[in-house]
Parts: sequence; C-alpha cells; structure tokens
Amino acid sequence: MKHLSTLTATTLLSLSLAGGAIAADMKPEEQILTRQAGYKFMSWNMGKIKANLEGNYNQEVVEKAAAAIAGIANSGMGALYGPGTDKAVNGVETRVKPELFTNQKEVGKVAGDFVAAANNMAEVATKGDKAETKQAFGALGQSCKACHDQFRQD
Amino acid sequence: MKHLSTLTATTLLSLSLAGGAIAADMKPEEQILTRQAGYKFMSWNMGKIKANLEGNYNQEVVEKAAAAIAGIANSGMGALYGPGTDKAVNGVETRVKPELFTNQKEVGKVAGDFVAAANNMAEVATKGDKAETKQAFGALGQSCKACHDQFRQD
Repeated sequence: MKHLSTLTATTLLSLSLAGGAIAADMKPEEQILTRQAGYKFMSWNMGKIKANLEGNYNQEVVEKAAAAIAGIANSGMGALYGPGTDKAVNGVETRVKPELFTNQKEVGKVAGDFVAAANNMAEVATKGDKAETKQAFGALGQSCKACHDQFRQD
Repeated sequence: MKHLSTLTATTLLSLSLAGGAIAADMKPEEQILTRQAGYKFMSWNMGKIKANLEGNYNQEVVEKAAAAIAGIANSGMGALYGPGTDKAVNGVETRVKPELFTNQKEVGKVAGDFVAAANNMAEVATKGDKAETKQAFGALGQSCKACHDQFRQD
C-alpha cells in the first residue's frame, strides 16, 4: 500500500495543473455543480463495481467503470474548489467543510492518495482477478472515505 | 473518418452491457440525474480542451480532459435511459426526446460514433500534436451535436 500513501511532486503538480485552465472562467455555483457531477458519476461507477464484486463478475463492466473513475479522478477537480465555493451560493448547496480551503497540506495528501488508488484500481481491473480487484476497490473506497471524513459535512 | 461511422458489434455490445448491471436498481429520477452528471462533467472537460486549443496549449490538461471524457463515454450510459426516464419524474426534468426510446438503430449509431470519437480524441491527445488534436476535437464535438440534434430538445 506504500504507493497509495506516497504523494509525489508529479501528482501534486498534476492535481493543480490539470483543471486550472478554465476554473477562473466559471462562476462559483457552476464549479460546485460540476464537482458534484463528477462525484455523482464516480459514485454510480463505484456502485457498479460493488454489485459485480458481490454478484456475477463481469470484467468488462468493472474495467470500464474503473476507467471512468480514474479519468474523472485525474481531471484536476481541485480547480473546482475556487474562491466562493466554500458555502452555498445562488441556491447551490455544498457539503464541503471550511477546512478544505485552509489545510492544503492534508487536502493534497488525501487527493493524491485518491488519485493513486483510482489509478491502481483501473490498472488492476484490466487483469480480471476478482480477489485483487476487490482489494483495490476496498483501498479506493477508503481513499474516498478519508476525504469525506475530514472535509465533507454529514 | 471511416472508423467513426462504422459501428461494430463489439461497440454495440459494450454500450448495452457496460452499465447494465446496476440500472434496474436505480429509480428513474436517479438515472436521469446520473446521466446528466456524466454529460455535465464531459462538458467541463470539453471546455478545457477548447480553451487550450484557442489559447496556451497544455498537453497534460488536454490529455487528462480527453481521458475523462473517454472514460465516461465508455461507461455504459445507455443503461441510464431505462423505463420511466423519458420525461420529468419526481421533479427531475429531462430534455430527452421520445425518439431516443423508439429509434434504437439510430441511437446505436450516434452512440457508437460518439464513443469512437471520444476514444480517438483520447488517443490523439497523448501525442501532443495540436493540429491533430484540433481535428479530433472537432469530430468529437460533431458526434455530440449529432445526438443533441436528433434526441435532445432545445
């Protein structure tokens, strides 16, 4: 699991860069709605993987769901937490905690762990080993939870 | 462009399979919200690619945005057009036209073209050739528009 907890300079750089080009042009409420869309779509795909691990295992479904999650995870969602997105704005609610905007070091760590876990899941899913996939899925779920516990209101 | 208009049996199969495992468990309104989340997140990434093609070109941003779009495109969104999702339900609106649920042949074609264009875009983006990327991006945009024109209300 070492590779999941090691946050490299490259990862940090890509977290900040990958979405940076457009965030300044988006209204705060649009940033909130867009990040929520990303989480919602990832959640659907997490559900598909879970259903496959608990029932009939279809490698293609799992592989494609994992690729969708990894694609979203790597797309620079950090850029969607711009100024003014720390609380409800123009009727758009958010569950983000204020700490996300002040504890950059910890945010970088949980975000980096999440991206690493998503990439690992996508890679493992291509092999078709259900037990290994289950382990990678568990690690990915933990990386989601680590952020929710610290930076999302109940 | 031949590869964009040729819909293979494999593509059709994966369109129907990749999301099928979980759709039956989702309420119609949740299916609508989830497909809208996918489109919204793809739209953000399309915007990033457009901004890069029109301004300073950052290959990493474009490559990751294209990978996110391809990941979502391949995730079996067809499963999110289940029974009862053809019109507003429990306060959740949709712009889908009735034709999407009756003209399966044409839906299969536009969906297959879209997936092929998204995969082509993701592959081309890794090469870093701005002109080639611009062409692939144009083709991807056209494949989005082809569906909107036929199956989305204004």
